[in-house]
Amino acid sequence: MTDLEWDTLVLGAGVLGCATAYHVMRSDPDRRVLLLDRNPRPAQGNTRRSVALFRDLFTSSTNQALASSTIALFDHVEGELGHNLGLKRFGYYWMMDPGKLDDLRPVLEDLERHGSDLEIHDRSDVRALLGEHIELDPVPPLDRGPLGSVAGAVMARNAGTLSPSRLAGWFEMEFRALGGRVEYGFTVDRLVPESVRGNGFRVWEDGRVAAVEGASGRLRAREFVVAAGAMTPSLLDPLGVDSHVKPRTRQAFGLVGEGATALHERNGFPGGHLPVMVLPSAGVYLKPVGSQRMLLAGCADDLGRPFGLDEDPQPEAEFLRDQIRPVVEGYLPGMKGAEVKVSWAGQYHSNTIDGNPYVFKESNLTVVAGASGSGIMKSDAIGRVAAAVHLDQRSTELFDGHRMNVADLGIKGRKVAPEALII
Amino acid sequence: MTDLEWDTLVLGAGVLGCATAYHVMRSDPDRRVLLLDRNPRPAQGNTRRSVALFRDLFTSSTNQALASSTIALFDHVEGELGHNLGLKRFGYYWMMDPGKLDDLRPVLEDLERHGSDLEIHDRSDVRALLGEHIELDPVPPLDRGPLGSVAGAVMARNAGTLSPSRLAGWFEMEFRALGGRVEYGFTVDRLVPESVRGNGFRVWEDGRVAAVEGASGRLRAREFVVAAGAMTPSLLDPLGVDSHVKPRTRQAFGLVGEGATALHERNGFPGGHLPVMVLPSAGVYLKPVGSQRMLLAGCADDLGRPFGLDEDPQPEAEFLRDQIRPVVEGYLPGMKGAEVKVSWAGQYHSNTIDGNPYVFKESNLTVVAGASGSGIMKSDAIGRVAAAVHLDQRSTELFDGHRMNVADLGIKGRKVAPEALII
Repeated sequence: MTDLEWDTLVLGAGVLGCATAYHVMRSDPDRRVLLLDRNPRPAQGNTRRSVALFRDLFTSSTNQALASSTIALFDHVEGELGHNLGLKRFGYYWMMDPGKLDDLRPVLEDLERHGSDLEIHDRSDVRALLGEHIELDPVPPLDRGPLGSVAGAVMARNAGTLSPSRLAGWFEMEFRALGGRVEYGFTVDRLVPESVRGNGFRVWEDGRVAAVEGASGRLRAREFVVAAGAMTPSLLDPLGVDSHVKPRTRQAFGLVGEGATALHERNGFPGGHLPVMVLPSAGVYLKPVGSQRMLLAGCADDLGRPFGLDEDPQPEAEFLRDQIRPVVEGYLPGMKGAEVKVSWAGQYHSNTIDGNPYVFKESNLTVVAGASGSGIMKSDAIGRVAAAVHLDQRSTELFDGHRMNVADLGIKGRKVAPEALII
Repeated sequence: MTDLEWDTLVLGAGVLGCATAYHVMRSDPDRRVLLLDRNPRPAQGNTRRSVALFRDLFTSSTNQALASSTIALFDHVEGELGHNLGLKRFGYYWMMDPGKLDDLRPVLEDLERHGSDLEIHDRSDVRALLGEHIELDPVPPLDRGPLGSVAGAVMARNAGTLSPSRLAGWFEMEFRALGGRVEYGFTVDRLVPESVRGNGFRVWEDGRVAAVEGASGRLRAREFVVAAGAMTPSLLDPLGVDSHVKPRTRQAFGLVGEGATALHERNGFPGGHLPVMVLPSAGVYLKPVGSQRMLLAGCADDLGRPFGLDEDPQPEAEFLRDQIRPVVEGYLPGMKGAEVKVSWAGQYHSNTIDGNPYVFKESNLTVVAGASGSGIMKSDAIGRVAAAVHLDQRSTELFDGHRMNVADLGIKGRKVAPEALII
């Protein structure tokens, strides 16, 4: 196979690589496309380590369009095609302190007017919904650092969880059904520039990538898609292509105990089920895992947590103890003493400028990056944009019929609003 | 000294650190400011390795304002204050291929109308100026890769060279005259987050940096300015602060011989002296060093040259042979056989998004970055913007009286036009 030159080589069979490969094949069925991953099957990297939430609640209209069309596809795949994605639409309950709620109220009211399935709650609504479980004015847990008061919340209903590996598996299956090929167990060590004497590109030409190289050999292609998640900067820095993202580790801790059980058993939630709760400080969130009466806790942990690629990130007990527990226990005192039933870590790749994805083409490289922890819930739409960029199309139609100018997500001519709702 | 807490600690006594330190002291004379560098005196890092050109020719009006006000300061320092900066105003002669000239003509004509000291030349003007030295339609040097034809050129007169170390030295001297303190020979290993148990920032607080740490000890301060050039990402990545720049090596080769001598001796240049010549392909440029009849050649060498910090970058003979010589000899055949009299390498830190500097504040860190190889010629203005950002002022007055909103150069609310004239 190493002698064959492919039309398109897609690097990374995470959810974005699978979605992009599928949409490239859909748009150009005669294309010889190879999807490559170092793991033995799709979605075994950081896609698998995601907390796997979805929502259509974003302040950037680009992010809204990407997410809501992708969620519509989830419903289609599970409801009409009968492929089980493990969809659970339990909603998000995003609590905010007074400053954040004031800042976002105009945007949220605008979203509500334009038909987003959300409710804006004030303090008394939060009290009514969560009862004595919630502490609206938590006491600082230690000697320093106040926790913001709960001023209100947004209940977003078009939100919940699904199985990222089933979703990626669906994209990959459809890609193969259209004639796409896969090669797993191939670790890419580097992208090989086209060159006569091996001294990189010639500066006076448009440099091109000729092949990928790994221990298993070289694979040549005319065009490349890099959808390698947290590994993207390591692959592109040697070529002098700036991916504009930084890898960062995030951790998840599954907490069980009386407090978690009581929250799961509480009645009266709009969706009939405990929603994801986002607490007002540091983007600490709790995802319900009903079958185990568990709450999966994580947080945005931005400033102060290092950037850097880690191929085997591990959860840290001190991070739970010093960073997450004080916030969880401040707002939900019943969670004191909760036990850790499961924990893991994974890497995100963050675009810290505006929190919208990057999709751009540099020479014969299409780069799909910067999903910033919301790539799964936007995967179908990002895959469509990436396929269009890859095939030099100016716009693409999302699953719900929305048309998007693909340059909006590029570097030159980028046109997105900064995202205020990132966790 | 390690027990003292400073008001402001400026990391890096390159030209941007010195300029920022000076303007912080100017704006707030009672402030206790310490300027820190690992070298024994200012401007001994990449500032010293610069090719040291200046120009006010930029397509971004922000870059124009930063450069033209800084050049006005150069004239003031040398002409009125009598401090020798080694200023030589020999101009830039920026040759372009048809595509680039067509793209830029509206911007250039606009600049001309608004009083920029430039002339737009067509092909015959280039021929008249450079005579038989220039090949307007060069033959591709090898089997691949065309060199663009010379369609015309821009002669920018408010441009030339100066001594970066004298300039940085002037800023540093003025900074000390105002009461600023310096500590040289201090290598910063890391920025130390304020923390109770040493586990980084608390996520629910506004994380702050408490100190810098190196082999010589810790230095505490209330606020920090990071003006560390190519080292900026290495200092900020561990804190999870994205500096949005990438370090990259650039090389300079001093070429001498009959061709270089003949160009130096040619008459009729608008400024009475051979200008910097920028060739139409790959941003290859030649800076005249009249005293040695030398042409210093370098190039933009973007795609295909790796990003990465290199504390002792070295020039590569193959880079000259395979990348620079074919372009130089294609346009200036008389340069064939030129000998290398001197060569060196230095690192730039590039903002590949829009080619304008970044100045932003994250918690108690002010970050000055992304000068992309034109930091020296914008140093005074960038220092003023950085001082204003550092002191929480919304705007600043540049040396020539131009007022600038400092948020224009920040991350949130950034408002700059992409720069098309980068080499």
